[in-house]
Amino acid sequence: MGRLTMRRPVLRLGPEGSKRRPDSLAAEEPLEIRVDGKPLSVTMRTPGHDVELAHGFLLTEGVLGSAADIAVARYCDSLDENGRNTYNVLDIALAPGVEPPDTSVERNFYTTSSCGVCGKASLDAVRLKTRFSPASDEVSVSYPTLVSLPDRLREAQRVFDSTGGLHAAGLFTGDGRLLVAREDVGRHNAVDKVLGWALLAGQVPAAGTVLMVSGRASFELVQKAVMAGVPMLTAVSAPSSLAVELADEAGVTLVGFLRGDSMNVYTHPQRISRD
Amino acid sequence: MGRLTMRRPVLRLGPEGSKRRPDSLAAEEPLEIRVDGKPLSVTMRTPGHDVELAHGFLLTEGVLGSAADIAVARYCDSLDENGRNTYNVLDIALAPGVEPPDTSVERNFYTTSSCGVCGKASLDAVRLKTRFSPASDEVSVSYPTLVSLPDRLREAQRVFDSTGGLHAAGLFTGDGRLLVAREDVGRHNAVDKVLGWALLAGQVPAAGTVLMVSGRASFELVQKAVMAGVPMLTAVSAPSSLAVELADEAGVTLVGFLRGDSMNVYTHPQRISRD
Repeated sequence: MGRLTMRRPVLRLGPEGSKRRPDSLAAEEPLEIRVDGKPLSVTMRTPGHDVELAHGFLLTEGVLGSAADIAVARYCDSLDENGRNTYNVLDIALAPGVEPPDTSVERNFYTTSSCGVCGKASLDAVRLKTRFSPASDEVSVSYPTLVSLPDRLREAQRVFDSTGGLHAAGLFTGDGRLLVAREDVGRHNAVDKVLGWALLAGQVPAAGTVLMVSGRASFELVQKAVMAGVPMLTAVSAPSSLAVELADEAGVTLVGFLRGDSMNVYTHPQRISRD
Repeated sequence: MGRLTMRRPVLRLGPEGSKRRPDSLAAEEPLEIRVDGKPLSVTMRTPGHDVELAHGFLLTEGVLGSAADIAVARYCDSLDENGRNTYNVLDIALAPGVEPPDTSVERNFYTTSSCGVCGKASLDAVRLKTRFSPASDEVSVSYPTLVSLPDRLREAQRVFDSTGGLHAAGLFTGDGRLLVAREDVGRHNAVDKVLGWALLAGQVPAAGTVLMVSGRASFELVQKAVMAGVPMLTAVSAPSSLAVELADEAGVTLVGFLRGDSMNVYTHPQRISRD
């Protein structure tokens, strides 16, 4: 679509003075996802790979179990002031028999019947039911393979170097082969695009894979991995406490601070071999 | 509350082998915000400063104009399995005459009447109405002051060095004095906590201030600045295209890549003086 980056003049200020120069910005536009014509969500995303994004989003929200659960995905005729389609509204028609997402306020805000979100119950309240359990996945990933992933992901990024503003996610096989890499202004969107690609490629549940993200590992990213059956999540930066807790319970190997030649393994280290 | 970080054993893998050691994780727990007993949102946040977070969230969602618009903010009795209050559910009672937020699905997903989110209309669709316009704010901030902000923000962070997992936001006066700094696992939450503090301190609209964030500048962060009347937003990393577009239109000075002794000024450079 050619909208991954936008050029714009910028004033660069430094010790030696100021100068105007062109700058590349990561494009960010809203994508409205509709299901059977009904608005479901709006996300601020980097345009492109929107069909994958919608598949990944609906997969990790528990609506889809396979690509066949979607009959048609098409852009609405949303026109800008010049009469051009903005490609910012995507309508998903579910296959017959697939239950549409519950769009009630209660569901969307993850609330429960009692006092909502509390303590141990909190994790239950925000956790979705998964169709796939990565807990029994016996993939073995070697230490040399793991330390090679950040560079492989970065090589696959075409945009990062020019804008510095994009998050990346990549799905790898257990021996380090890159299956797909996607970038987005939103970390969750990058992961949704990757997992949507996997769904469309018939690779969900994503047994034997490693999902690598360029930033932090939050609860929601671990949840997305679980929902797609991914047994290992690796991140360049830190995980949160709830991310570790969920990974522990769901049987996901969670690796953080994967930089240079070292890493922290927070949960289920049995999947990592020395060489 | 002592829940900013959690200790947990971690397996550290490096070229010289592996060792178990304790690690600090940034605490992440869900906070449910209710308005007059009705669930409004759940956010994954770092516990602490929740009342500020709720104030900032409701301010930047357009519900509040001043601290007096909230009559009472109190934690619900949400008990964990040990009978302790989790402090994860906060109920806000609005003052008489304050209109509660529209919790219909349509509003929450920012959808519009026509084909939703498209082109020029897209920005309107996701943009909230502000009570305060920072456009006419004549604050002048010097180049030396601006380059000092990242270090000042970092000094104010108590947690970052131990976990590496927290985003920070700080509100500064035009001459570089720190008014408040807050951290959170979520970038938006850190900003909401800062702006909620400002609201409670009677400093909204936040005329003459600079909001500094530790990461990227997204559309939503610019929108939060606008909603609180903040005339200048500075970020350590890149802005997105829509962040620049909104800052341009709303009269906010947007600075990115504020690192070392240089920066990029994307919009309204007239507020920056050489020294």
